[in-house]
Amino acid sequence: MYDFSADMTDCAKAVEIVLGTRLSVAQLSGPGPAADTLVKAMRHGSLEGGKRLRPLLVRQAAAIFHVPADAALIAGLAVEMVHCYSLIHDDLPAMDDDDLRRGRPTVHKAFDEATAILAGDALLTHAFDLLADQACHPDPAVRIALVRELAQGSGGGGMVGGQMRDIEGEQGGFSGDDISTMQAMKTGALIRASVRMGAILGGADARALAVLTAYAEAAGRAFQLADDILDVTASAATMGKATGKDAALGKQTLVTTLGVDGARQHLNDTVTSALSALRTFGPKADGLRATARYFASREN
Amino acid sequence: MYDFSADMTDCAKAVEIVLGTRLSVAQLSGPGPAADTLVKAMRHGSLEGGKRLRPLLVRQAAAIFHVPADAALIAGLAVEMVHCYSLIHDDLPAMDDDDLRRGRPTVHKAFDEATAILAGDALLTHAFDLLADQACHPDPAVRIALVRELAQGSGGGGMVGGQMRDIEGEQGGFSGDDISTMQAMKTGALIRASVRMGAILGGADARALAVLTAYAEAAGRAFQLADDILDVTASAATMGKATGKDAALGKQTLVTTLGVDGARQHLNDTVTSALSALRTFGPKADGLRATARYFASREN
Repeated sequence: MYDFSADMTDCAKAVEIVLGTRLSVAQLSGPGPAADTLVKAMRHGSLEGGKRLRPLLVRQAAAIFHVPADAALIAGLAVEMVHCYSLIHDDLPAMDDDDLRRGRPTVHKAFDEATAILAGDALLTHAFDLLADQACHPDPAVRIALVRELAQGSGGGGMVGGQMRDIEGEQGGFSGDDISTMQAMKTGALIRASVRMGAILGGADARALAVLTAYAEAAGRAFQLADDILDVTASAATMGKATGKDAALGKQTLVTTLGVDGARQHLNDTVTSALSALRTFGPKADGLRATARYFASREN
Repeated sequence: MYDFSADMTDCAKAVEIVLGTRLSVAQLSGPGPAADTLVKAMRHGSLEGGKRLRPLLVRQAAAIFHVPADAALIAGLAVEMVHCYSLIHDDLPAMDDDDLRRGRPTVHKAFDEATAILAGDALLTHAFDLLADQACHPDPAVRIALVRELAQGSGGGGMVGGQMRDIEGEQGGFSGDDISTMQAMKTGALIRASVRMGAILGGADARALAVLTAYAEAAGRAFQLADDILDVTASAATMGKATGKDAALGKQTLVTTLGVDGARQHLNDTVTSALSALRTFGPKADGLRATARYFASREN
């Protein structure tokens, strides 16, 4: 029987340990030694926190193809570094201007803005160094496919593009379709990349990749819906970050257009759609199933 | 006979054309369409300017191994995108706070800070997407080696690490050795990566790679020395950016420790050392030779 809670805890622990080792002056390869402050800021922005859901998705998608959890870890770390860099940059005064993240000062508060910008840049860059390392996968063709997937998921046509759309949306009117496109990019693209990277590690054929992409897109929508609902219903203490921000900013989400109950119903439908995409896989996909259900039920 | 001026012009033209094509909503691959403003900011920060010296170095190093200029272009573009992103982020108010770059408003002036941060992030990310593309090189093993080289040259142990050291140096005392380490990372690391990426495209063996690395490190030092000298001796009009900034910031460079004449002498010695590294290559390395000489004689 698949144990979601054990899998999530085990994954988070592994990510924490390996991130802690990799983010050191000695391990950050390059022609010179990384500055201490930079490494500290990179660690502050990525250690001790987060549920590590993206590495978990990489691991769970890879598990469908019998890839052991260990063999999916480096690719998962790379996605997690991209996720952490995006939080550091999003928190900057010029962006969301957040002082608190996971209950601790954000990187620009604990250090300063310049250091936060550079720590984000370095984490993003290091993610690709990790994927290029033979420890990620022995086959260069697989590693380069992972690079491509992560770059496209996190770049202008993915996560960063979604963040830009989000900022533009705050300034002008946003239709329901615009919100969906923005969210599919801002949050969805990296979740999609995580699942697809797991599939790539497992040597998935085009058909399996398409099915898993459909799952990932639905799961990403569910994740964002849950986030928008929590922004309205949860307290800052539970979330470890400011809540009620969307309304305060007059920001439109699917909760503002559908209401909380409508959004909850839509969330359930979306999870059902994610689960039905996994039909062909049988019990090997129980990990991905559990994560989609978790997205709908999470309380922080 | 090798014609440096023709080679440089041809390379800059090719970079400009292909950057112009690649930086479009249609070409920025990902799960969604890139926001127009983001693409405009990416273009503002990378088109119409710069001597494209890094793509030139990629091309010249590749030429030693008979790689045609066209076949070195995508790798050169990737390095150039990293260079441009670093300028966009360096110009931010929290960093160097520059209003002018190549005689035009910097990206955060022409747009806003949030857009500049995101445009930089997107350019950095897209660089790796370019390297992952089969158009860069048919062999995945070569492409992944290029990813590794670029990531290490531009990350915490390279360019970004050097930028962090530079900021720290402004705040405290800096020895001559500290300055050299900082400069070898901040400017040198990407020059080094450019030359090595050209060599990797050409399938250089370990020995040739070591020789070219020695060249690149000396050339990088020469480039930075010339820059520091120009900061003292040139006008803002010639440079297209503010000059005299180092002194105004009380920033130490090798010019402050050696004086302008001493620094010029050191620059000549450094170029000689770069040239002598190329001894084994004969006329095939005339491109790299000309670039090293150009670094010493440039006036902007």
